[in-house]
Amino acid sequence: MQPVYEQEDTQHATISSLSEALENGLLAEVRQTLSEMPAEDIGHIIESMPPKAREQLWHLLPHERQGEILNQLADEIRAGFLSKMAPSEVAAAVTDQDTDDVADILADLPENLYHKVLASMDEQDRQRVAAVINYPEDTAGGLMNTDAVTVRPNVEVDVVLRYLRMREELPSHTDSLYVVDRNDHLLGMITLTKLVTSNPEDLVADVMTKAPAIPASLNDVEISHLFERYDWISAPVVNEQNQLIGRITIDDVVDVIIEDAEQSMLTMAGLDEDEDTFAPVAKTVPKRGIWLGINLITALMAAAVSNYFEGTLEKLATIAVLMTIVPSMGGIAGNQALTIVVRGIALGHVGASNARWLFIKEVMVGLINGIIWSVTVGVMVYLWKDDLKLGMVIATAMMMNLIIAAASGVSLPLVLKRMGIDPAIAGGVILTTITDIIGLLTFLGLATYFLV
Amino acid sequence: MQPVYEQEDTQHATISSLSEALENGLLAEVRQTLSEMPAEDIGHIIESMPPKAREQLWHLLPHERQGEILNQLADEIRAGFLSKMAPSEVAAAVTDQDTDDVADILADLPENLYHKVLASMDEQDRQRVAAVINYPEDTAGGLMNTDAVTVRPNVEVDVVLRYLRMREELPSHTDSLYVVDRNDHLLGMITLTKLVTSNPEDLVADVMTKAPAIPASLNDVEISHLFERYDWISAPVVNEQNQLIGRITIDDVVDVIIEDAEQSMLTMAGLDEDEDTFAPVAKTVPKRGIWLGINLITALMAAAVSNYFEGTLEKLATIAVLMTIVPSMGGIAGNQALTIVVRGIALGHVGASNARWLFIKEVMVGLINGIIWSVTVGVMVYLWKDDLKLGMVIATAMMMNLIIAAASGVSLPLVLKRMGIDPAIAGGVILTTITDIIGLLTFLGLATYFLV
Repeated sequence: MQPVYEQEDTQHATISSLSEALENGLLAEVRQTLSEMPAEDIGHIIESMPPKAREQLWHLLPHERQGEILNQLADEIRAGFLSKMAPSEVAAAVTDQDTDDVADILADLPENLYHKVLASMDEQDRQRVAAVINYPEDTAGGLMNTDAVTVRPNVEVDVVLRYLRMREELPSHTDSLYVVDRNDHLLGMITLTKLVTSNPEDLVADVMTKAPAIPASLNDVEISHLFERYDWISAPVVNEQNQLIGRITIDDVVDVIIEDAEQSMLTMAGLDEDEDTFAPVAKTVPKRGIWLGINLITALMAAAVSNYFEGTLEKLATIAVLMTIVPSMGGIAGNQALTIVVRGIALGHVGASNARWLFIKEVMVGLINGIIWSVTVGVMVYLWKDDLKLGMVIATAMMMNLIIAAASGVSLPLVLKRMGIDPAIAGGVILTTITDIIGLLTFLGLATYFLV
Repeated sequence: MQPVYEQEDTQHATISSLSEALENGLLAEVRQTLSEMPAEDIGHIIESMPPKAREQLWHLLPHERQGEILNQLADEIRAGFLSKMAPSEVAAAVTDQDTDDVADILADLPENLYHKVLASMDEQDRQRVAAVINYPEDTAGGLMNTDAVTVRPNVEVDVVLRYLRMREELPSHTDSLYVVDRNDHLLGMITLTKLVTSNPEDLVADVMTKAPAIPASLNDVEISHLFERYDWISAPVVNEQNQLIGRITIDDVVDVIIEDAEQSMLTMAGLDEDEDTFAPVAKTVPKRGIWLGINLITALMAAAVSNYFEGTLEKLATIAVLMTIVPSMGGIAGNQALTIVVRGIALGHVGASNARWLFIKEVMVGLINGIIWSVTVGVMVYLWKDDLKLGMVIATAMMMNLIIAAASGVSLPLVLKRMGIDPAIAGGVILTTITDIIGLLTFLGLATYFLV
């Protein structure tokens, strides 16, 4: 009787059979399968399909379900569908959605479409959305819903319970009621678990607890840290006068956490922060190409350094054979330090209070690993090429590059952050440029001085 | 009156002033500051400090708070403190903690300490822990708590409310009560919001809804996908007989999501999956060193390839100057494809149903970007070195390497996953080896054939 959740392999079996049915034009079958599925599953299936199949599936959905399914989709995929809908269709699709979701959908629309959609909404919906849409999407104000349930401090628990029973339904993820005065100033909160376990004659003021008030301007990543640290399900948002203007719920915070993590991972690999796995080739090529272009500049700068030492390379081909080792090891060591600091900044662990300690630590790590691996490489090269001086040159270059790589790996994200540049995006490219150029300069420079 | 949450900069100010007070031996001041802080904040501060300050802070904490603070710490930091505590101290510290947290703490202990701690717990606690500890930590069974509140289907809502009032307190994150028969078979659930808005005379059986039953063996990452997709706050866990054995709450799922995201980010950068930012140098060096060693093998393999072409390099130093460009571009392009597929697998988007489509897409992207950037590089090298044949050789090598890089970037994670190897860990290193070697082979091979 209960739905028991299966391994994800079976989900791919569903996707496969749906794709096959689409290809074979068995549309009635597809419609039947979709009608039995919750919106969340349909959203996931659409995200797991190539563009053509996505379009087909979308058009087989009944109009009244499009709104809830739009909410399940990643921004870019949603924007694609929205751009093909009429304003009235968009307005109909967003009716009855959470305020923050509506605001997100509207924010994705082009200016003229946005005003048309707003005009075709009813007055109450328009006001709800207006309360949210003026805040930037990545702040508490942009993330909040306006559906908080409020009570007054001077009523009895029993009265609150009767009031709730009259409402028949509470907003999703309601775990607490907020206690406000007549001017909406936030006084405290009472959790549902507290409410149902309290004596019915108790006053709200006597059973309420302090509420964690989030200022409307707080950044969404910092909000996610708070939810994570204090295990909240929802939290009230206040304006500068401490008036309750909405609440943030854990489901939206989970989305922030996932997006933030994904963004770091993608940008560190030279990808666009919201790259869609199944985007068409024409959309993907320019996005990827930008990073290839930036990397080409880096690679040409390294080649220019080698070019300066062309004389050395001409005389000693062995130098050319070995010259990629030092930059490569520096890249790895630098990237390790960089990643640790980028993560530390993201978690709120790394800041002014410990940057100096961390710098010294990472340089020490670079120094010790530098000694270990320089000696290893030096000995190996000596044995391979039977040239002691060559072994000493590569060892010295490696040593210097690993220390500089560690020092740059720690400092770069801290400096970039202070300059207002996202270290996860720019850090990797700049760091590789540094470690490549320093690596080549030290190895080729020392080789020219001592070996030629 | 309400705590309003501040920007994270002010947190680092607190950390700075605490560090300073520790250094100056103002222990009474530190104790005072800590006594006013919630456990979550103390945990965060300990995680943001170097090892020595961590120790000092820990010893300034009153014993009765150590348990709740242990729960806030990352596994490795926690294990460090636990290893220095007596079994009776550990047992005292874990009293009144959530079952899954106790199980996690115990699982970190060495075998003999573990049995001693278990022996010093009271019978009820021991049974609660025993129910969880037999399941692997990364399954529903290991993640669950045993504190679910259950009700019978044939009672009235009013009776349930009176029963809850008698309990006085409900477990944290209780958003639903689970409906079970006399043999604990899960029949359904009733949310607190539903409970407080229902007619008191209604029967539980009439207002309950289906409950999403999670099998005890389900993997924690898949569980996090379910919570994320369906916006759950808690979900019941059942055994193979569909009997309710516990429940999973969103706060623990958030931890899974964050750990999983971090792990991908860290392992892709050649770091240990739970590397502690402030671990002492002696602990960090060997962990980082392993990856440097693996990279050295890769770099030496590439050098061996170049060595094979030493004759060519001897005759044409320009080849040596340019030879790092092709492998470097291949590495970027391959890594882009790899990261997209690794993320797609992690999100459950990529699987058997669409692997073929994705392969074709990525190879097409590689082909088109290959054409664009080969022509660019070819022309640039022609203009720089005034050698048309050289320009054509580097363009052809780049073209071939970018296509092979894209094809390897897609296939590698899929193949590794089928072999049961984590693609995020091994993927990057193997891919770089492939793109380096293919890049050098094509460029040096073509140069030897056409230019020498």
